[in-house]
Amino acid sequence: MRRYRALAPGIVLLLTGLTLPASGQQMQRGAHRTPDGLPHVDRSRLEHNLLTLGEIGRDPVTGGIERVAFSAADLEARRWFITRLEEAGLSVRIDEIANIIGTLPGQNPEAEAIVLGSHLDSVPQGGRFDGALGLMIALELVEAMRDLNILLSHPLEIVSFSDEEGGLLGSRGWIGTLTGEDLEEEYHGRPLTAILRDLGLDPETFSQARRSPDEIAAYLEVHIEQGRVLEREGLQIGIVEGIVALDEYEITVHGTANHAGTTRMSDREDPMAAAARMVVSIREEVEAQGGDLVATVGRIAVEPGAPNVIPSVARFTIDIRDPSRIILDRAITNLIDRFDSIAREEGVMVGWETLVQIPAAPADQMVIDTLLEAAALYGYPHRVMPSGAGHDAQSIARLAPMGMLFAPSVGGLSHSPAEFTRTEDAVACADVLLRAVMLLDQKLP
Amino acid sequence: MRRYRALAPGIVLLLTGLTLPASGQQMQRGAHRTPDGLPHVDRSRLEHNLLTLGEIGRDPVTGGIERVAFSAADLEARRWFITRLEEAGLSVRIDEIANIIGTLPGQNPEAEAIVLGSHLDSVPQGGRFDGALGLMIALELVEAMRDLNILLSHPLEIVSFSDEEGGLLGSRGWIGTLTGEDLEEEYHGRPLTAILRDLGLDPETFSQARRSPDEIAAYLEVHIEQGRVLEREGLQIGIVEGIVALDEYEITVHGTANHAGTTRMSDREDPMAAAARMVVSIREEVEAQGGDLVATVGRIAVEPGAPNVIPSVARFTIDIRDPSRIILDRAITNLIDRFDSIAREEGVMVGWETLVQIPAAPADQMVIDTLLEAAALYGYPHRVMPSGAGHDAQSIARLAPMGMLFAPSVGGLSHSPAEFTRTEDAVACADVLLRAVMLLDQKLP
Repeated sequence: MRRYRALAPGIVLLLTGLTLPASGQQMQRGAHRTPDGLPHVDRSRLEHNLLTLGEIGRDPVTGGIERVAFSAADLEARRWFITRLEEAGLSVRIDEIANIIGTLPGQNPEAEAIVLGSHLDSVPQGGRFDGALGLMIALELVEAMRDLNILLSHPLEIVSFSDEEGGLLGSRGWIGTLTGEDLEEEYHGRPLTAILRDLGLDPETFSQARRSPDEIAAYLEVHIEQGRVLEREGLQIGIVEGIVALDEYEITVHGTANHAGTTRMSDREDPMAAAARMVVSIREEVEAQGGDLVATVGRIAVEPGAPNVIPSVARFTIDIRDPSRIILDRAITNLIDRFDSIAREEGVMVGWETLVQIPAAPADQMVIDTLLEAAALYGYPHRVMPSGAGHDAQSIARLAPMGMLFAPSVGGLSHSPAEFTRTEDAVACADVLLRAVMLLDQKLP
Repeated sequence: MRRYRALAPGIVLLLTGLTLPASGQQMQRGAHRTPDGLPHVDRSRLEHNLLTLGEIGRDPVTGGIERVAFSAADLEARRWFITRLEEAGLSVRIDEIANIIGTLPGQNPEAEAIVLGSHLDSVPQGGRFDGALGLMIALELVEAMRDLNILLSHPLEIVSFSDEEGGLLGSRGWIGTLTGEDLEEEYHGRPLTAILRDLGLDPETFSQARRSPDEIAAYLEVHIEQGRVLEREGLQIGIVEGIVALDEYEITVHGTANHAGTTRMSDREDPMAAAARMVVSIREEVEAQGGDLVATVGRIAVEPGAPNVIPSVARFTIDIRDPSRIILDRAITNLIDRFDSIAREEGVMVGWETLVQIPAAPADQMVIDTLLEAAALYGYPHRVMPSGAGHDAQSIARLAPMGMLFAPSVGGLSHSPAEFTRTEDAVACADVLLRAVMLLDQKLP
C-alpha cells in the first residue's frame, strides 16, 4: 500500500460513498485464489487506484471530473498512469497519436497481442468511472497476474486511447481513419498538431499510429454500462453483444413567420407546431419497432425565436440507435413518411440532414462465449446486452475479435458527477476479465 | 403636388406595386365631395405621403423599413412628419416622452380634443404601412378638411407616439404607467434618458407627459390588420371591437439528463418529449375553445442541447390571446391541467412563469357605432372584429372612448418588407375616419 498517494479519507467518503477499510482492520493484500482455483483481484488496490485517479481533475465544488482530453488534468492523469504501468512492470510507449501503450511481453514472442483498452479523458463535469474503470481494471489485472505468478503466452497490451469522448481520436488512429482535418481540431484553443508537439510527437507522422490486424489477437474493454439495465435486473456484469448502429440527423422545418396575435390558427404554417408533432411521432415509431431501438431529440430551436412571432423555421436533432442497422434504417424510413404527412397537414416543408452515420460493431462470438464462460465460473450474475454508447471498441472491432464487459451504473447515471459503480461490481468485472484473458490466451493462436 | 419629394417612379413601382398617375393624365387634386355630399380624401396625396415616408429608413436591398425607435431613420421621419404637420396648419409640440403632438384648434376652445394617433417607428425589417398608415391618414384627414372647409367644434390632435413597437412607450407615458426603469431602457446602446436629452427634453420630467381624461373626448387609430381576415372575406375595413387580452408565459420542464444511447425509452424522464406533447396539447385546447383564441409557441430551447444527450430541461414560451379575459383564463386553467397530466406521465416537473399579462381593451360602443355608420354611408364593405395585436389604443382606452379601424393586409403579412395595403383600401379607411370624426364632433359634448 505504500505507493498510494495520501488521501483525506473523510472527504473521500463524503464525496464518493466508497468505504475505505478502517485503520487496523484486517484487509486483503494482493490478489488471491479461492479454493476452487479461481483467481481474484485485489479489491482494495483496485478501489484505491480508482480513488487516486479520481482525484485528478476533480472539481472540488461539484465532485465532478474535469479531465477533457489534453487538458492540464488529462496530462496529469497521463503522467500518473504511465508511472503506474511502469511500476506494474510494463514497458510504455506513446504512439504517434498520443495513445499510451503499456506492453507485457508474452512467453511466445511471435504471438499477437491481447489488448485491453479504455481512456483517461472525461466529458466536462463527468464522473470517476467512465473510461477510468476500464484502465484501472486492466492495471489491476496485470498486478493480480504478478501476485499470482500468472504468465501469458501472448503479449498483453494496456492502451489508454487519446480523446475517446471527443470522438474516438486514438482508436481511429489505430484503424487509419484520421485525416489532416482531425489534426487541426482545436483543444483548449490550440490545434491538435501543437498539442502533439508539446508531447514530443511529430504530428506529420500521425498515420503511423495505424495498427495491423496481424498485431492484435483480441481486444477487450471494460466500461460502465451508463444505463439502468443491469441495476434493474440485479446483475453484476454485462457482456456486450455489439455496439449499436447510430445515426444523427438535423431536421429543418420551414413554415411562415407571422404575427402571433393577428394570425388565426387556421391561417398558420407553423413549423413549431409541426416539429412538436414530429417529436411526438418519433417515440410512437420507436415504440412500434420495440426492442433495443432508442431515439432522442437533444437539441431544438426556432427562428426568429420571439414569444410573439410564429416561427419561420424550426430545427431539431434526432439521435437514433439500434444494434441492427436494418431496424434502424426501417425506423428512419418510417419517420421520413411520418414527417412528410405531418408537413403536408401543417403546410410546412421538412428537410433531413445527416450529421453522423456509424455502422453497428458486433462483438466476436468466440470472445462473447469466453466472457460468458468466465462469468459462469465465478457465478457472477450477468447477461448479454447491446452497448447503446460508442466506445473505442467499435474502432478496434475492425482490426481484431472484440469483446466488452459492462459494470452496472447506479441509477444508470453517466457523464455526471453522480456517476457511480459499486466496488463489488468492479471487482466482479476484473475477476471475469482476468479469467477470460487466461482462457483467451489458451484459445487464441 | 409641388411639396412632394421627388421620387424615381420606375423604382418605386417596382418595389411597391403602387401605380402613380401617368404624366399628363387627369388627376384629382385635393379632397372632394361626391354628389351624395360625402367627403372623399385625396388618393394621390395620401399615396405620395405614404411613399415619401416609406423612403425614410428603407433598406435598398430588402425593401424593408429599418426605422426602429430613436434610430437615425426614426429621427429623420420625426423631423419630416413635424414639417408635414406644420404645413397642414397644425401647431406642433413634443411632450416629455417625445411624443409628437400636432393640434388643430376647434371652434369651441373649451371642448376636449378628438385625438388621432399612431406611430412612425418600425420593427427591424418592417414594412411601409405598420404605424405609418395611421399617421398618413390622420394627416390626409386634416388636409382634406382644409380642402373642403370642414371646421370642427372640438380641437383635433394628431399624435405620433414614441416607440410603439418596443412596448407602447409613448402611450404609456400618457396614462402614467412608465417607471424610472423604462427611462433606463437602452436604444442603440444608449439609455432613453440620453436620447431624450438629445431631443432637448428633460428626462426628469417624463411623468408630466401624463394626460388627463378631461383632455380627450375620443381616441381613434387606423392601423393595418396584420392578419388575413379582411382579405379572405373581401372587405375593405375592419372596425375593432376591442384589443385582445394577452398573456405570455415561459414554461420550464425539468427532467433528467441522460445518455441518448444507453438509456432505454422506458427509463427516461425526458423534458423534450414532454414539452413536445405540451406544445401539441396547446393547439388541442385552443381548438376546443374555438372563437378568436390564438396561442403561439415562439421560442423553445433545451439544455444541455447536445444531440446525444437526453435534455435535463426544456423551456418554451406561450403567447395566448383572446378578446375575452374569461375565455383566456379558462384556456390557461385547462392548459395547466393538461401539462400537469403530461408531466405526471412523463416523470418530469413543470413550472409556469408569467412574462406578460395585458387586460383586454374594449373599444367604446358609441365610437364603434359611429364608425359603422360612416362605413355604411360610403358602402365600403366592412366588419367588426377583434384586434389580436397590441396598439397604443389599448393604453389610451383607459383615458377616453377608443375606436380603431383596420385596413386589409395583403396576404396577412406584417412586420415584413412584404407588408402591403392597397391604396383603395387606405382611401376607404381615410374617408370613413374623416366622416366618423365629423359625426363624433357632433355627438361628443
